[in-house]
Amino acid sequence: MDYRTILEDIYKSVKSYSNVGKVADYIPELAKVNPDKFGICLNTIEGGVYEVGDYAERFSIQSISKVFALAMALSVKGETLWSRVGKEPSGTAFNSLVQLEVEHGIPRNPFINAGAMVVVDILLTSFENPAERFIGFLRALSGSENVVYNEQVARSERETAYLNAAIANLLKYHRNIECDVEEVLRLYFLTCSVEMNCRELAKAFLALADHAEPFRYAGIELTRSQIKRLNAIMQTCGFYDEAGEFSYLVGLPGKSGVGGGIAAICPMRYSVAVWSPRLNSKGNSVMGMKALEQLTTMTDESIF
Amino acid sequence: MDYRTILEDIYKSVKSYSNVGKVADYIPELAKVNPDKFGICLNTIEGGVYEVGDYAERFSIQSISKVFALAMALSVKGETLWSRVGKEPSGTAFNSLVQLEVEHGIPRNPFINAGAMVVVDILLTSFENPAERFIGFLRALSGSENVVYNEQVARSERETAYLNAAIANLLKYHRNIECDVEEVLRLYFLTCSVEMNCRELAKAFLALADHAEPFRYAGIELTRSQIKRLNAIMQTCGFYDEAGEFSYLVGLPGKSGVGGGIAAICPMRYSVAVWSPRLNSKGNSVMGMKALEQLTTMTDESIF
Amino acid sequence: MDYRTILEDIYKSVKSYSNVGKVADYIPELAKVNPDKFGICLNTIEGGVYEVGDYAERFSIQSISKVFALAMALSVKGETLWSRVGKEPSGTAFNSLVQLEVEHGIPRNPFINAGAMVVVDILLTSFENPAERFIGFLRALSGSENVVYNEQVARSERETAYLNAAIANLLKYHRNIECDVEEVLRLYFLTCSVEMNCRELAKAFLALADHAEPFRYAGIELTRSQIKRLNAIMQTCGFYDEAGEFSYLVGLPGKSGVGGGIAAICPMRYSVAVWSPRLNSKGNSVMGMKALEQLTTMTDESIF
Amino acid sequence: MDYRTILEDIYKSVKSYSNVGKVADYIPELAKVNPDKFGICLNTIEGGVYEVGDYAERFSIQSISKVFALAMALSVKGETLWSRVGKEPSGTAFNSLVQLEVEHGIPRNPFINAGAMVVVDILLTSFENPAERFIGFLRALSGSENVVYNEQVARSERETAYLNAAIANLLKYHRNIECDVEEVLRLYFLTCSVEMNCRELAKAFLALADHAEPFRYAGIELTRSQIKRLNAIMQTCGFYDEAGEFSYLVGLPGKSGVGGGIAAICPMRYSVAVWSPRLNSKGNSVMGMKALEQLTTMTDESIF
Repeated sequence: MDYRTILEDIYKSVKSYSNVGKVADYIPELAKVNPDKFGICLNTIEGGVYEVGDYAERFSIQSISKVFALAMALSVKGETLWSRVGKEPSGTAFNSLVQLEVEHGIPRNPFINAGAMVVVDILLTSFENPAERFIGFLRALSGSENVVYNEQVARSERETAYLNAAIANLLKYHRNIECDVEEVLRLYFLTCSVEMNCRELAKAFLALADHAEPFRYAGIELTRSQIKRLNAIMQTCGFYDEAGEFSYLVGLPGKSGVGGGIAAICPMRYSVAVWSPRLNSKGNSVMGMKALEQLTTMTDESIF
Repeated sequence: MDYRTILEDIYKSVKSYSNVGKVADYIPELAKVNPDKFGICLNTIEGGVYEVGDYAERFSIQSISKVFALAMALSVKGETLWSRVGKEPSGTAFNSLVQLEVEHGIPRNPFINAGAMVVVDILLTSFENPAERFIGFLRALSGSENVVYNEQVARSERETAYLNAAIANLLKYHRNIECDVEEVLRLYFLTCSVEMNCRELAKAFLALADHAEPFRYAGIELTRSQIKRLNAIMQTCGFYDEAGEFSYLVGLPGKSGVGGGIAAICPMRYSVAVWSPRLNSKGNSVMGMKALEQLTTMTDESIF
Repeated sequence: MDYRTILEDIYKSVKSYSNVGKVADYIPELAKVNPDKFGICLNTIEGGVYEVGDYAERFSIQSISKVFALAMALSVKGETLWSRVGKEPSGTAFNSLVQLEVEHGIPRNPFINAGAMVVVDILLTSFENPAERFIGFLRALSGSENVVYNEQVARSERETAYLNAAIANLLKYHRNIECDVEEVLRLYFLTCSVEMNCRELAKAFLALADHAEPFRYAGIELTRSQIKRLNAIMQTCGFYDEAGEFSYLVGLPGKSGVGGGIAAICPMRYSVAVWSPRLNSKGNSVMGMKALEQLTTMTDESIF
Repeated sequence: MDYRTILEDIYKSVKSYSNVGKVADYIPELAKVNPDKFGICLNTIEGGVYEVGDYAERFSIQSISKVFALAMALSVKGETLWSRVGKEPSGTAFNSLVQLEVEHGIPRNPFINAGAMVVVDILLTSFENPAERFIGFLRALSGSENVVYNEQVARSERETAYLNAAIANLLKYHRNIECDVEEVLRLYFLTCSVEMNCRELAKAFLALADHAEPFRYAGIELTRSQIKRLNAIMQTCGFYDEAGEFSYLVGLPGKSGVGGGIAAICPMRYSVAVWSPRLNSKGNSVMGMKALEQLTTMTDESIF
């Protein structure tokens, strides 16, 4: 069965979940999204592009941005990065302060909020214009100049971000943030506010799936080994406290965001981006997870 | 480079770590092992067998046995198994009571001690002669009748197992153990006491690597999907609170034991078993981890 | 207003709470108690004895026994006792394993279950016939030979005591129990099974209220300072995670038990024992707490 | 023995601890205090005033201010206050975020930092000029117009207060702070920055010791019952995670501050304030605690 047919089958079959879950509503900009949207795009390393549904509509990528931020930090810091952030799954909710306090300010991994803030702090101290470099990196990866920040979303997030402000202050207390707390929060929310569509996102992740090609985008370079390791971290930490569930059901390294997007890769085969705004209780897209579970079942292609 | 040359290169190069780490000494039977042993065996799905060092010497497989116990429980319970044990990484030490208390007696995954006890409880209620069935299953998998329990080790463990007895009682308190606490502990330690060598262990794990073949051993059957999912759980939970590290450095689903053994697989390519008794502070074999890191680097074959 | 009138007023007024709360039912012997019982007895240090209701009916004193066990351990160990058990309030439920694990086997105080087990372990290693010495001490304190163990209750408790067995094993793991785990659990439950009535209990606590008198009962001696300090521990730790509430509402050092009893003292004034089997969600007698709150309000006699 | 002689004896005897402990140095203003200072003042309810050492020198009262803030909040909110803050001892360090996260933003008691911030938030919403009302209240209590804020200390604290900012943000996240986070932090640190000497502090606490007198100071009124209950909270929660130790050794309701001050009361007998800047590992004054332990031993006057 070819990818096109598979995606079309998935499109039909995930409809039965179309009323399950709840759109993120902690800021008005996310709450007003049409909850019934569903789009998917798959890119093969041979150059095939397969798309179904609302694949061309942009959405807030939110935490998926943490993969790109980590790639940038890894490119400048290399293995020394891991003295400031762990690479173990968190075992607790993505925004837990408990772990951070118990482990003296070293976040479990770069994909929980605390870890991503440390990564953002590294971007701030490593790049001259980190916000410009970040968006430039995403444009190069996705081959699209239309990838932009949504500054209104970033502002809205910051205004209500008491929990994230608590986390940033706790990191600063433990001296694991060098810059000003406000500055870190501002760039953190800015990177989360990026809007992409499935097509752009799948293209951007193709660079992680195809590590036979040199990784060099807008001046950011990674070795083959670094890409594999970045994939490994997505695999164990990409889905908050549902990482095991995603690994079990889907079997691909990937990353989700509360905007309803999920991007994943099958190394040396394909990248895939899916978007559907309704989330399960763990903050992951219901139809997105179902779609990917079906994808690896139908293609019989997972990492296991 | 062929596997033989690679294993020989690894053998030479891991020697530089030969004094790092400490043999498990909480029972005399483990403490008296020669700490300088190192053996490795790799089986390809095409039938190749490559061996170096002390690959023929039997050692206590300890927690590696949890993979086999899970396979048996999965074969009889299917997906209903997951109502009694999670499949998320633990994020804390393998014997933590905190997680168990906070989550009301549902262990995080089947590879932490608490989870393995629930699995053993399922074996006790599902099989007529669970101890015989278990060892029979391992003999069928490894193709070796010489795989046996070390009852002296099992007794020694039980006598000093205050922490494990605490865990079992807490599970019973939360009604997640049906059988008698003592009975569960006895079978748990018996399964951990199995002795195998690298050759037998690599052979046994080949059945997990090669899921194109039907899995049917001594009456235990698993579907292809179940094998992949079992591999997924090894990937996210197989190394206690070093699962992320192993995934990052090695990139293979695997399971370690305090006897110094590690077994891992590269799906549809090979299985590998390595043994070296000195452990790092997380309880995983120092030279074993180094050997596997080198293996995936040199072969350029990992799941990522 | 004299004590008799006050007790009679209390008796009438607490009736309005007679349907609130739930009798402990984790063992059949406790579950079958008549939930509507209410008795109270107050002894002044001048020798006055005031009694109302079911003051002559014996009930299971349960955790109130921990005060007597602590008195015995303190008399033999003195201040060295505190190397094995803390004297800080627990801040979590009385049977929490979390605290014990985090603090490496040193229970927060001698009135949570873990702490009481350490105390019992001390009795086992310090006295020749600890069970006999304990009941003899209680008889001497209460002036009643009718104070006895209820061995059926003790047996019933032990049979279902999975959580307490978990605690005892964890203490043993941390080497904070010297004796055999089973032996500690047996004496622990035996001391909890003692049956006394309010008259006997009030008399026994009078020795803690009147520290002007020498404390010497059945060979157990305490200095005046030790009695005051024992009272201080009752004050801060006597009511599980409701110690602050009891201190706030009642303002007396005291100790409760799941049998529905509460014993308390007003230093150099009186001791009081109250019994009513219905418990609130924290495991303390509803009518008992109300009665004591009214007592200190009406007499205007508390420690604050 | 009269109080004067006792205080002089204490003065001599605590000298042996004069090198033990460490002055708080997290802000320069506290670090520069002469560590060898020691002052004590005791007021009896009959009007006696006894003073020794550096009793006339002002110091930063820090957390002792939380008692006064609580008194004000209690006077306006009464028992409804307790829906927003608990009255149980904390069982963990005074600035722990763990408890706050686990208990969904309800601080354990009004004397841990989180609880005091909730109290300050209440002052902000209940009084027109809360900062003026607070200092006016302290002046009325102490009978001294020289009691002032040290705004330099308040500013210094705020600048480095990452942990407290984390706490305040977490409270806001849980909607247990109504006002702006910055506003709460500002008043919180301002109240902590008050400078008093032992004479003023002992006088201020006399109003809590002598609850036979009507409590009415600068428009703040408390009933007799409220004063007793405030004393009860000091007793169980006044010394962070050393509350049990202080209760055990000293046996008085009291409150300490990192400036090295301790104020305590013996109900219907006396109030006492002691100051010595060197702190033990729990943040309480070494010589202060020793002095009070000796005081209750020598006077034989404690609440137990």
